[in-house]
Amino acid sequence: MPKPPIEPPKTLQWVGDLPGHVLMIEQTFLPQFKELEVHDVPGMVDAIKRLAVRGAPAIGVAAALGVLLGAQQRMDATGQQALDGALEDCRVLAQSRPTAVNLFWALDRMQACARTAHASGLLGEDFARHMQKEALAIFESDRRTCRLMGEAGAELIGSGMTLLTHCNAGALATAGLGTALAPMYVAHASGKMIKVFADETRPLLQGSRITAWELNRAGIDVTVITDGMAAKVMQEGRIDAIFVGSDRIAANGDVCNKIGTYGLALAAQHHKVPFYVVAPLSTIDVSLASGSSIPIEERDRFEIAHGLGKQTVPEGIKVYNPAFDVTPAAWVSAIVTEVGVLKTPNEAMIRKALGSS
Amino acid sequence: MPKPPIEPPKTLQWVGDLPGHVLMIEQTFLPQFKELEVHDVPGMVDAIKRLAVRGAPAIGVAAALGVLLGAQQRMDATGQQALDGALEDCRVLAQSRPTAVNLFWALDRMQACARTAHASGLLGEDFARHMQKEALAIFESDRRTCRLMGEAGAELIGSGMTLLTHCNAGALATAGLGTALAPMYVAHASGKMIKVFADETRPLLQGSRITAWELNRAGIDVTVITDGMAAKVMQEGRIDAIFVGSDRIAANGDVCNKIGTYGLALAAQHHKVPFYVVAPLSTIDVSLASGSSIPIEERDRFEIAHGLGKQTVPEGIKVYNPAFDVTPAAWVSAIVTEVGVLKTPNEAMIRKALGSS
Repeated sequence: MPKPPIEPPKTLQWVGDLPGHVLMIEQTFLPQFKELEVHDVPGMVDAIKRLAVRGAPAIGVAAALGVLLGAQQRMDATGQQALDGALEDCRVLAQSRPTAVNLFWALDRMQACARTAHASGLLGEDFARHMQKEALAIFESDRRTCRLMGEAGAELIGSGMTLLTHCNAGALATAGLGTALAPMYVAHASGKMIKVFADETRPLLQGSRITAWELNRAGIDVTVITDGMAAKVMQEGRIDAIFVGSDRIAANGDVCNKIGTYGLALAAQHHKVPFYVVAPLSTIDVSLASGSSIPIEERDRFEIAHGLGKQTVPEGIKVYNPAFDVTPAAWVSAIVTEVGVLKTPNEAMIRKALGSS
Repeated sequence: MPKPPIEPPKTLQWVGDLPGHVLMIEQTFLPQFKELEVHDVPGMVDAIKRLAVRGAPAIGVAAALGVLLGAQQRMDATGQQALDGALEDCRVLAQSRPTAVNLFWALDRMQACARTAHASGLLGEDFARHMQKEALAIFESDRRTCRLMGEAGAELIGSGMTLLTHCNAGALATAGLGTALAPMYVAHASGKMIKVFADETRPLLQGSRITAWELNRAGIDVTVITDGMAAKVMQEGRIDAIFVGSDRIAANGDVCNKIGTYGLALAAQHHKVPFYVVAPLSTIDVSLASGSSIPIEERDRFEIAHGLGKQTVPEGIKVYNPAFDVTPAAWVSAIVTEVGVLKTPNEAMIRKALGSS
């Protein structure tokens, strides 16, 4: 039976030409499907902060499109005003979330683009067109990168395997096929039979609400479990490999990802289940020697205490809500990137991969 | 500053004499406080199935009181009818939940009591009084057992320690001070300064809804985290010891407890954090050589998919919902019982403890 072509959901897209706007899937409502239009920088900052758009690569793309939204509102500005405005938009967007390095990587590209445009004397619509070209290049590059990671990662998947994933590192975390889920899509499309367990991923349930939704939509067999069940499912011998994404990878290969990944990786290590991290090279931050220096975002108590519309933590009781944790490189079987699979990653291997890109 | 006396919430109680009824805290509504009256066996089966009353020792006590509710409705019955009715009630109550052995232990006592009463020729109210005496003895024995476990376990707690617990093995899981939380109450009352992290414990959030509620009520410093954060909090070096309860302990010391305990124990093992299981001897099932033969209850998909009043798993997607898992004895630093602390437990030690009771 031929598999359907891989057509990922449109996580975010640029609509119209110039001026245009961003249309995105409002992810806080999933599994109910709802779209959101974003027309300006404050709207994009809000969408990123609220996790209407989330996932490290997607927030990089969203930030780049955010800078473009700002630029198109200044088509009457002087050259200096256009540059200053773009740099200020980058500064504001950089404060939306602290952990995913792809955000800063995309904003660095947009900043450099603004400086080049300014240095070339571009004004008005020409300045905005230059910014549009770069933002759409970041968008297209993310789609291509996802496809390459998917093809590289699919080599690790045999037909009949049962995989496990945490949070959502799928199409809805990128502009393309996803990171951790991309190999699953490619494997499925090539006719391999796979089953997937999805950790629901408290507090915000990106696993049950988003990963299950998009895998099911693609016709992949998916079963939702709570986070505390993952170790038991491994104990039962049912998991052949784990695939997760990452929000930042240090120079030594330590992997920062959604809270719960660290305990999952420890369980994988104990049960000898391969633990794969799928991430574009833009996730790697060589400025940090190890994962211990990655800033970990702490989010509002409300996400845990009232997360699903009902109060579950009594008033006045403390809540600790770190959004990410760091898994040591030693527990990572491989990092799957757009330039190939880095098995048992270390600093030399990572620097070499970055050099080859 | 003198500590307040330990006055646990009244999880369940017998109200009136004969006929009387059971008054319990409706635990599915916590942290909103609501009470529930139970007047007959079907009502008690329903309360146990719905987890209105939960926790291994508490469901043992609830089942015993359930048999009493049945007996008092047959005060006009013949001796044989009274015996047959009591045995039938035990059979029905035994089917309410499959994992916690305390349920079967309590029903065995009530069955034996019914046979003795019948053999002694007791009829009508005398038969019911005999059953009442046994049910209330089970109730009182649970209170005393909790206190003894609390005193033994408190020896393991030094002032200034930060503890972690999973699910609710507190006063609300027993008729007394609790199992895992009893040592905390005793330590706190004796003036030791302690802090507690409570795993929220998906899917039913007994940690955030119940443990946090009762520890806070007792003036103990408590912080709620999601289950996936426990390993990170250990990685941060913040946890000095873990205390959990148990639903069944095999002859070799393998511990069955709320789903998520297995992964927690693995993380404790890795981080060299002492992992204590607090349970009365009635939790030990010497008929099972190891934990692999303990029946694991699977509960409805609704608990995960719609757990908090809002649909979080898309329609038609599979859910796996085992309520318990099994932790190997090798990862258990000690089992704290009413006859003392069994360090690095093994079968010989466990059989000796059972013999001494």
